[in-house]
Amino acid sequence: MKLNSMKDLYKEQLQDLYDAEHQILKALPEMIECASAKELKNAFQEHHRQTQHQVKRLEQIFNEMGEKPQGEKCKAMEGIIKEAEHIIKEKGEPEVLDAALIASVQRVEHYEIAGYGTAKTYARMLGHNQAAHLLEETLQEEKKTDHMLTELAESKINARAAV
Amino acid sequence: MKLNSMKDLYKEQLQDLYDAEHQILKALPEMIECASAKELKNAFQEHHRQTQHQVKRLEQIFNEMGEKPQGEKCKAMEGIIKEAEHIIKEKGEPEVLDAALIASVQRVEHYEIAGYGTAKTYARMLGHNQAAHLLEETLQEEKKTDHMLTELAESKINARAAV
Repeated sequence: MKLNSMKDLYKEQLQDLYDAEHQILKALPEMIECASAKELKNAFQEHHRQTQHQVKRLEQIFNEMGEKPQGEKCKAMEGIIKEAEHIIKEKGEPEVLDAALIASVQRVEHYEIAGYGTAKTYARMLGHNQAAHLLEETLQEEKKTDHMLTELAESKINARAAV
Repeated sequence: MKLNSMKDLYKEQLQDLYDAEHQILKALPEMIECASAKELKNAFQEHHRQTQHQVKRLEQIFNEMGEKPQGEKCKAMEGIIKEAEHIIKEKGEPEVLDAALIASVQRVEHYEIAGYGTAKTYARMLGHNQAAHLLEETLQEEKKTDHMLTELAESKINARAAV
């Protein structure tokens, strides 16, 4: 794919996010199973539901552009998830593994915050206002999930792991 | 490495960041060369200098823990950088490639924001106050770089790419 215009780059960013979201959808069930704390399992389950909506938003954006929704392999998300899988396979105290899972998922969230922030800016520039609105909705969800995980880690999970 | 305690996890996070920083140091010169806009070249050069200091801070933390500074291959950063290298090799308009480079480096920044945020929290929990202070310094630098790149993209680079 040649990057000759901002529209090319915008499409490329959407494809990257579309593939990233699918990788997250595939990885979350194993993380949910690995999590010990009930609050963490619930948080990951909620994030799984949210991710399904976020995929639908991207599909809506592709459709409105007259493009087939498709992903371009997101190597970054592949790496982030490989690290999370490494933790799942690691031996250790369940409470410490919970803290490690949060650290992994916050890396996922921050990748998405960077990606959706960029895509939203491009959509607005290109006058794709409805798309910009949808991307902003997802961006806010990702930021909220990140903050919620920080709070969960600092108020409960890390303290249990330190015992 | 077994994750039996928060100290194990803290060390693992520091090793991840140490390897990530080294990968960034290695990748930045090619990005500096690929950037067309003078402001972007300068921003990346400044970030290269800053990254060298951030590596030194991590080395100081390892030394104070009585640990040898070493990295554990950061697969996430490997993926993020592979995507950036893909852009460098892509053909297209120089102004659009500049915008794409910013999108890549903001993903780098957000990975580090997640990583340093986590490591700083662990350091504080473990009573490693001097380390927490150093990690907070780096965290603030990464956030500042991310904001500066957003500003540069929105005020100049994206508009040039859209012409």
